Amino acid sequence: MEVSMQQLVVLAYSGGLDTSCILVWLREQGYSVIAYLANLGQNEDFEEARAKAEKLGAVDVIIEDLRRELVEDFAFVSVQGNCRYEDKYLLGTSLARPCIVRGLVRAARKHKAGFIAHGATGKGNDQVRFEFGCAALMPNAKVIAPWRDPGFCARFQGRQDLFSYARANGIPLPVTPKSPWSIDGNIIHVSYESGILEDPNCPAPEGLCQMTVDPEKAPDKPQLLTINFEKGIPVSVVMEDGSRVEGSLEVFTAVNTAAAAHGVGRVDMVENRFLGLKSRGVYETPGLTALHAAHGDLESVCLDKRVRDVKEHLAHVLAQQIYNGLWYSPECEYTRQCIAASQTHVTGSVRLKLYKGNVHVVQRVGAPGCSLYNTSLVSMDEHGGYDPTDASGFIAVHALRLREYGSLRAAAP
Amino acid sequence: MEVSMQQLVVLAYSGGLDTSCILVWLREQGYSVIAYLANLGQNEDFEEARAKAEKLGAVDVIIEDLRRELVEDFAFVSVQGNCRYEDKYLLGTSLARPCIVRGLVRAARKHKAGFIAHGATGKGNDQVRFEFGCAALMPNAKVIAPWRDPGFCARFQGRQDLFSYARANGIPLPVTPKSPWSIDGNIIHVSYESGILEDPNCPAPEGLCQMTVDPEKAPDKPQLLTINFEKGIPVSVVMEDGSRVEGSLEVFTAVNTAAAAHGVGRVDMVENRFLGLKSRGVYETPGLTALHAAHGDLESVCLDKRVRDVKEHLAHVLAQQIYNGLWYSPECEYTRQCIAASQTHVTGSVRLKLYKGNVHVVQRVGAPGCSLYNTSLVSMDEHGGYDPTDASGFIAVHALRLREYGSLRAAAP
Amino acid sequence: MEVSMQQLVVLAYSGGLDTSCILVWLREQGYSVIAYLANLGQNEDFEEARAKAEKLGAVDVIIEDLRRELVEDFAFVSVQGNCRYEDKYLLGTSLARPCIVRGLVRAARKHKAGFIAHGATGKGNDQVRFEFGCAALMPNAKVIAPWRDPGFCARFQGRQDLFSYARANGIPLPVTPKSPWSIDGNIIHVSYESGILEDPNCPAPEGLCQMTVDPEKAPDKPQLLTINFEKGIPVSVVMEDGSRVEGSLEVFTAVNTAAAAHGVGRVDMVENRFLGLKSRGVYETPGLTALHAAHGDLESVCLDKRVRDVKEHLAHVLAQQIYNGLWYSPECEYTRQCIAASQTHVTGSVRLKLYKGNVHVVQRVGAPGCSLYNTSLVSMDEHGGYDPTDASGFIAVHALRLREYGSLRAAAP
Amino acid sequence: MEVSMQQLVVLAYSGGLDTSCILVWLREQGYSVIAYLANLGQNEDFEEARAKAEKLGAVDVIIEDLRRELVEDFAFVSVQGNCRYEDKYLLGTSLARPCIVRGLVRAARKHKAGFIAHGATGKGNDQVRFEFGCAALMPNAKVIAPWRDPGFCARFQGRQDLFSYARANGIPLPVTPKSPWSIDGNIIHVSYESGILEDPNCPAPEGLCQMTVDPEKAPDKPQLLTINFEKGIPVSVVMEDGSRVEGSLEVFTAVNTAAAAHGVGRVDMVENRFLGLKSRGVYETPGLTALHAAHGDLESVCLDKRVRDVKEHLAHVLAQQIYNGLWYSPECEYTRQCIAASQTHVTGSVRLKLYKGNVHVVQRVGAPGCSLYNTSLVSMDEHGGYDPTDASGFIAVHALRLREYGSLRAAAP
Repeated sequence: MEVSMQQLVVLAYSGGLDTSCILVWLREQGYSVIAYLANLGQNEDFEEARAKAEKLGAVDVIIEDLRRELVEDFAFVSVQGNCRYEDKYLLGTSLARPCIVRGLVRAARKHKAGFIAHGATGKGNDQVRFEFGCAALMPNAKVIAPWRDPGFCARFQGRQDLFSYARANGIPLPVTPKSPWSIDGNIIHVSYESGILEDPNCPAPEGLCQMTVDPEKAPDKPQLLTINFEKGIPVSVVMEDGSRVEGSLEVFTAVNTAAAAHGVGRVDMVENRFLGLKSRGVYETPGLTALHAAHGDLESVCLDKRVRDVKEHLAHVLAQQIYNGLWYSPECEYTRQCIAASQTHVTGSVRLKLYKGNVHVVQRVGAPGCSLYNTSLVSMDEHGGYDPTDASGFIAVHALRLREYGSLRAAAP
Repeated sequence: MEVSMQQLVVLAYSGGLDTSCILVWLREQGYSVIAYLANLGQNEDFEEARAKAEKLGAVDVIIEDLRRELVEDFAFVSVQGNCRYEDKYLLGTSLARPCIVRGLVRAARKHKAGFIAHGATGKGNDQVRFEFGCAALMPNAKVIAPWRDPGFCARFQGRQDLFSYARANGIPLPVTPKSPWSIDGNIIHVSYESGILEDPNCPAPEGLCQMTVDPEKAPDKPQLLTINFEKGIPVSVVMEDGSRVEGSLEVFTAVNTAAAAHGVGRVDMVENRFLGLKSRGVYETPGLTALHAAHGDLESVCLDKRVRDVKEHLAHVLAQQIYNGLWYSPECEYTRQCIAASQTHVTGSVRLKLYKGNVHVVQRVGAPGCSLYNTSLVSMDEHGGYDPTDASGFIAVHALRLREYGSLRAAAP
Repeated sequence: MEVSMQQLVVLAYSGGLDTSCILVWLREQGYSVIAYLANLGQNEDFEEARAKAEKLGAVDVIIEDLRRELVEDFAFVSVQGNCRYEDKYLLGTSLARPCIVRGLVRAARKHKAGFIAHGATGKGNDQVRFEFGCAALMPNAKVIAPWRDPGFCARFQGRQDLFSYARANGIPLPVTPKSPWSIDGNIIHVSYESGILEDPNCPAPEGLCQMTVDPEKAPDKPQLLTINFEKGIPVSVVMEDGSRVEGSLEVFTAVNTAAAAHGVGRVDMVENRFLGLKSRGVYETPGLTALHAAHGDLESVCLDKRVRDVKEHLAHVLAQQIYNGLWYSPECEYTRQCIAASQTHVTGSVRLKLYKGNVHVVQRVGAPGCSLYNTSLVSMDEHGGYDPTDASGFIAVHALRLREYGSLRAAAP
Repeated sequence: MEVSMQQLVVLAYSGGLDTSCILVWLREQGYSVIAYLANLGQNEDFEEARAKAEKLGAVDVIIEDLRRELVEDFAFVSVQGNCRYEDKYLLGTSLARPCIVRGLVRAARKHKAGFIAHGATGKGNDQVRFEFGCAALMPNAKVIAPWRDPGFCARFQGRQDLFSYARANGIPLPVTPKSPWSIDGNIIHVSYESGILEDPNCPAPEGLCQMTVDPEKAPDKPQLLTINFEKGIPVSVVMEDGSRVEGSLEVFTAVNTAAAAHGVGRVDMVENRFLGLKSRGVYETPGLTALHAAHGDLESVCLDKRVRDVKEHLAHVLAQQIYNGLWYSPECEYTRQCIAASQTHVTGSVRLKLYKGNVHVVQRVGAPGCSLYNTSLVSMDEHGGYDPTDASGFIAVHALRLREYGSLRAAAP
């Protein structure tokens, strides 16, 4: 039988119970299913997943290693922007989604599939991120979101329904009991939400985190490392033993591993989802936490004060765009261009100390022609081209309107 | 001899070598000097300072305990605004200056003095903060800034000149050698800059910090404490042993002491001064670091998402105003009004864990009528008044312009 | 028969064909209908509309004169904020909707109705404004939006279906043919969109505008009037003949009438709707155009430069909130509080000249204690407390970082 | 005699009394003076000015026609940014200053002059613009600002002193009496301030404006013209008679002439100078007013809604930078890069109607591949790929937090 384009769907497949059931269910609805599984460094046996999808009737299974893409095209852009959503969240999931979407669309185009399906739930941000990406990159594709499909939802009203369906359709059941929260992980982070975490007054249970060592169990000896940036991009890292790591994925992995070993990058927070719901999440993002600290610090010596102000606003906007699933939107493309333009001189080195959950910047130096820090200008011990009496004029002029205002208020009845 | 108002100067006196020399020098210039010394909790023997100023010929010595004012009127306002300058600096000095200026002006008015003098240097931010405050609060007062006075500067070209002058004028010399950096301290922070710290690539020396324990030497056992807020103001703290502390200064002190003991609140950074110079500073602000973490977290459950956005912008503006010495400016008064208006429902409790330099929020709960967190709405296990199929419409509408844009770009040659 | 709360709906009734059909259709669906008709000054025979609604079976007809509310509680707030959406649109419709919603909810509460219905279409902004208002003010009310109801839409697929339905149900047909565009009007504005206006390259037809005289047909003689503000609110207007008008509605009407007679306030623009669609509209808002010009000008003398900056950002945010139907949202309530706080000293008088489409400010004066304009300070002919040599220091200090930057770039290879 | 670099000064020479006196005074101080006169289209006899400067002893006189540079490199950038300072001022002077500074520095470099002198006063913005530009472009140059030089100011305390000095030094006196205000003009604008205009409650006198016809005396017949943009730059204009003008300076001049003839672009305002003073100015900027109207309108069809938001903030920042004399600052260079990046698709045509002071946009069309306006999407008469029921989900989701908030407030005591 020929597979017509109308019937062909590329499914964002995770290898887990939900998307396995969705795979079978889609086949039941008459679709031919290509299972697409992105390797973003998550904890997964990819070949086992491939075998499972094939066994469940996927017409094709595509497994792509996108780890380097994730680091270069997404994570490092967020480092350039120092992007944090609501001051804390380092966007581990938000950065991964557009990376997956690009892969999904690539696969859909290549195989001339007209449908893209995903297993994201109906209350979360991920559905938005998948579907905005598809709308922008493949406007004619139709998206199938089973967890918002009335038929699907009626059939699968609880996990027991998934279990029964799995048993009936030869889908292997998970051997470990489901944890009482949901997890998303990739090379840059692991996040935890829902279940018992839904109560923001319930402390995150000990042993929750998978990627980072508990700060209280981290080594007693701090670790020092030096990160070298070129135009805002980490290009190499010099470890404490003097060894030097180069290459985007390699640098990221080295920093991530070190930071994770020292318990760096855990956040427990309540955030506002794009849909307006407040939600509690626990995140661990060790490597990005360290890279943000280093990059932000380097900017403090390489960016002019007012450039910093303009860029800071844009970076704030960028973080919101990324969180809201708008990576492929015109505004995000535009904002990323602006951020990139700010990084021309963000070149230099920052030395970090990692210790039991802390990242401390201990040294920094901008490259020649990039550092705007002028020791002789700021020094208390030399004039360095600065005449202190100029400050009198500076203050007097700035104070003009304060004095006007003070006089006016003093004269008020 | 009668002291005419024209000749009477209120000097911001610290008790140290510089302002002692200034006191004598002012007298030489024909002024009568009132020494004003604010007790902000700095490390100082106030009665010894009084005796010294009297001995040096001050016509009056005023020592005011402003610690509670500093906490209530300044530090807690910055907590409400989560104010950080350039993302990191908690404004320890910047908050103290307007508190001192208010005291100085109070004294000048009371004693009908026409002059106010300070010992701030000509490259720093403090001169600006003193003089903007005076301009606004006492527009007709004249400010004397000896370190920008050509005569004074010509006479005192190095520390040796100060020493000679001190010896010649009976000013006691400091018994301890001057540290190779400068220090500013008060109840909320200690800061270190200049000297060997001027090189941003030189690590801060071990043993620099006075207020906080080195995280590496902090207790192995974490400490938990719960901070209770009303309208964004910390009103009480419950310590790990269940004891409860109330009162502004008392709450602040309890949190500050605990945080300091656990090495919380150290920052090593390069910042952009108001005058445009880049400058490296090391700051320790343990209590405010903990209070900011708690307050910001409570806002995440009590502030609506969009109110948070509007307020965040204002808070950013407020931090810059405070840093730039503009506390008494019309714009800062206005911004503070706006910030205060955002805090009506920021009432609830946050539980913190302090551990070797870390502040982790472990629990938070908004007061009834204040918390906008709705567990049943966000829960994966119940609908809670939310219909997931609504998200389809939500996404479809938002995706309209993305699809338009995608189609347009796809059609581009 | 008793009307149960479940069955009782308050319908935003306009008196026109659409909402008359909706009234009858709602009755067919089993609802009892209260017709609610707000008098906002639109061109309507209210008693005829009452008779029609009664005849069509409304259980009650409520007609409320909300004109003063519209001016005081909505239009004047937007004057304080100088609110323009996308730089041009003066929000004539956007301000009216929350005024109507408040009336609808008042009626629904009073009559214990559980439903609110409106006749807004499914592509526009008004549906959003109605429903956001209802969600905030009466969270438990259910909203019926027939133009998005599949049953209703299936039945009424074109205007011919409305005509047939009207004929079949005794609904009087409009005697004048429908204009080839849609109109919304109230005391503050008339707007025109859709139909032939949908093509942005098609000029607005001559004779389109109903409220303002065509500038080319306006009087050859300009008209001068003086508007007096207290705390940013227009409290009186002095007409060219010296007569003085007081009272909110009266002042607004006098200014509106004068401005309309001189062709002031026409805008032809493309805007971005909340739903993301681009839409072309023609607006006429004579009175608000004149009041904005006067108020903005008065702020230039009464607001400190930096207060202006902070407020300007908030005003921009407010305009977007109003346009997006968020009047009753927490963020809009908050923003309005902030805007109001900025107006304490915006008291004074502005003289306008109206002439063939132009509003020119010709004179302005802030009230004593409110004006920050200091003639002697700015004068070229006197020093006025300003020492020009201070500017040297001011410039030198500001230029520090420019010189650093220039040197760095000059040294670049 | 050889002129040493130390003694050589390039003077921004206007040909008027002030800079002529400065020229002679500089020679008295021992400088050799190169008179630099930029032709920006101001009302000036350049050859007469050259002769005068030579006669007064200038070692060289440089007259450069910078009109095209002014239009291309400065005015059109501000069109792309829709730059208005404080909502109204079109920056006519602010744009000209960096154009002149670039010329001055070019001359100083070529002739190896170490000094640059200007005749701007000590209370205004222009001194700042000159000197910031010099600091950035020629950090080692020394700037001489006679009107802030104590010796110069002591000698020239009033205009009589200038007259006496002129008579004594063979400087021709102006034949026309000085107008009771000061004027700055160039090809893009004329501005008027000080003198009798210093009182903001004094109407601008009739006959003040030189560039534009009084709207009341403008033609009774409107004029239509079509401006074509490519990437936000006006590339041609089609006049009412169908003739087409191309070339930057030519297009600008054609639009400027037409707009001036119809009384377009007069503004009477109070602004906040960079130095903090409030100042009243009357400006006429006919061509830029028309170009801004056209460009802003074209953006409404070519810029995505959210790109517009991001760009609008940047444009606001750019206007302040330009006003404050920061054209050559790192932040302005950066902001201009960002603005330029937003203009990639701002290509299309806008038809304007000029009539007695009004500029009305009557038609606009984006180029294919650039216009995001989709008639079938917005049409009331077709679905165009839009499903109105999607709006229900859109509204429901957005209303979630409003409903939460409403419920919470309703439950409040």
